[in-house]
Amino acid sequence: VLPSTAGPQLLTVDVAVAGVHGDLELIGLDDFGWRALAGAVSDIAAMGGRPRGVVVALAGPPTLDVDRLYDGLAAAAAAHESPVVGGDLSTAPVLAVAVTVTGTVDGAVVLRRGASPGDWLFVTGSLGGSAAGLRILRRRAARKSPGVEDARGEDRAEDEEAAVARHRRPRARLTEGQVAARAGASAMIDISDGLAADVGHLCEASGVGVRLSAVPVAPAARLDEALGGGEDYELVVATADPDGLVAAFAAAGLAEPVVIGRCTAEPAERLLDGEPLGAAGWEHPFG
Amino acid sequence: VLPSTAGPQLLTVDVAVAGVHGDLELIGLDDFGWRALAGAVSDIAAMGGRPRGVVVALAGPPTLDVDRLYDGLAAAAAAHESPVVGGDLSTAPVLAVAVTVTGTVDGAVVLRRGASPGDWLFVTGSLGGSAAGLRILRRRAARKSPGVEDARGEDRAEDEEAAVARHRRPRARLTEGQVAARAGASAMIDISDGLAADVGHLCEASGVGVRLSAVPVAPAARLDEALGGGEDYELVVATADPDGLVAAFAAAGLAEPVVIGRCTAEPAERLLDGEPLGAAGWEHPFG
Repeated sequence: VLPSTAGPQLLTVDVAVAGVHGDLELIGLDDFGWRALAGAVSDIAAMGGRPRGVVVALAGPPTLDVDRLYDGLAAAAAAHESPVVGGDLSTAPVLAVAVTVTGTVDGAVVLRRGASPGDWLFVTGSLGGSAAGLRILRRRAARKSPGVEDARGEDRAEDEEAAVARHRRPRARLTEGQVAARAGASAMIDISDGLAADVGHLCEASGVGVRLSAVPVAPAARLDEALGGGEDYELVVATADPDGLVAAFAAAGLAEPVVIGRCTAEPAERLLDGEPLGAAGWEHPFG
Repeated sequence: VLPSTAGPQLLTVDVAVAGVHGDLELIGLDDFGWRALAGAVSDIAAMGGRPRGVVVALAGPPTLDVDRLYDGLAAAAAAHESPVVGGDLSTAPVLAVAVTVTGTVDGAVVLRRGASPGDWLFVTGSLGGSAAGLRILRRRAARKSPGVEDARGEDRAEDEEAAVARHRRPRARLTEGQVAARAGASAMIDISDGLAADVGHLCEASGVGVRLSAVPVAPAARLDEALGGGEDYELVVATADPDGLVAAFAAAGLAEPVVIGRCTAEPAERLLDGEPLGAAGWEHPFG
């Protein structure tokens, strides 16, 4: 039971399945829990909202270390100011976690569908870090060497650690989403499936095309990871007032958002630097 | 995004796993979907609330007939006036569904913990039907005879069909919960784990004991099914004003609630007809 509140109510759910949304040979159960919560909260961030309460549905084998999983969930809940207020447990042959978040917004809700031709597109940070982190973890596991001896220098080792941390414990961009909403963002989406796929979702919902100019690639990542790797949870922000957005981020003490391109009037258009943007990113294989 | 509303916000989640919460050799995927939704809505009913919106997280194998599952979810959503407003899909080796319901209450929220010594305990209907329905489905499957030739007469065949329907498509007692709340119920719980277990939960939360006198057994069911069989989703209502509760149900055109006993001042007391009430009912086997 949550107290009464003004304004529209946001409700979003995200499901994470071991082996699909996280490899428990590479990350801890606590990391898996963190990721599940951050991914769900990110949907609230993409609407410019604030989380109010979280409920967690957990299914897993009887041998599951529920405490460790909840440690990660609780750490992510604290980091995102998203209190876990309830849940349900069941046995199942495989670990699956569904995180539902309810939230509020102070002003208008920003959706995927509000972008217009001519709007500028920004991202709130560099991309591909999570995918690079996963690649690095896989390489280390294959070599059975947990250390940094395969890194070519101190800088690269630090970049690799940052990418691994991004994979294990991503942060939803709640403040960025709220500031962007107040600064008049016309549409937003969080990058969970990959930039190419999620920009595609925003364009499809808005009935616009897109010409991307440049994409900020995270230090340890490759361009294909920045375009196709999901779970970075940076936000894509569309706005008709790019100066206003940059000024609002500066006033809030946030890192400067990065221009990646503009929306166009041709709904089928999906270009990066003049070339067709591949439909990279992850889609579910149902029907 | 749901519109603004007054009063406290209810948020509840229920998870259903194939093989744990439903045997897909015995019931359809649409029935499984119905049961998942009804079970989640039932938690709202037990607080005297009205559902506002439902989100569904679904994990299952790529071969899953998602349409049939959603048919059952949608039918249950319509029957319970609980619109499905969003969801998330993932592949997984096993079918698991998490249903989250948000709701509102007009007056005060009724919880498990409000019962006092001397309060009367009621149930909103006869018990054990769902467990009996499962037993009947198993017997039919073992005999490979879908018909009624093992029934001893027309009456029993009808009772069996009612029990099977109760197992496949239970109804959450939303109106009953709202009427009981307005009539001043001190505590409520829905029967999902079984009467003995759920009365135990109510007593534990309220710090009271219980003396049960009689339990209404559904026509095709046995006493042990009425006490230990879960998923009937009838409500247990505690009240200091039994006449008021009965009058309120009559005024609302609802079936008369059935007295099953009274709360006592001895927290450890759990009696049925003077004998210890077994700790029947279903508990999860985690740690």
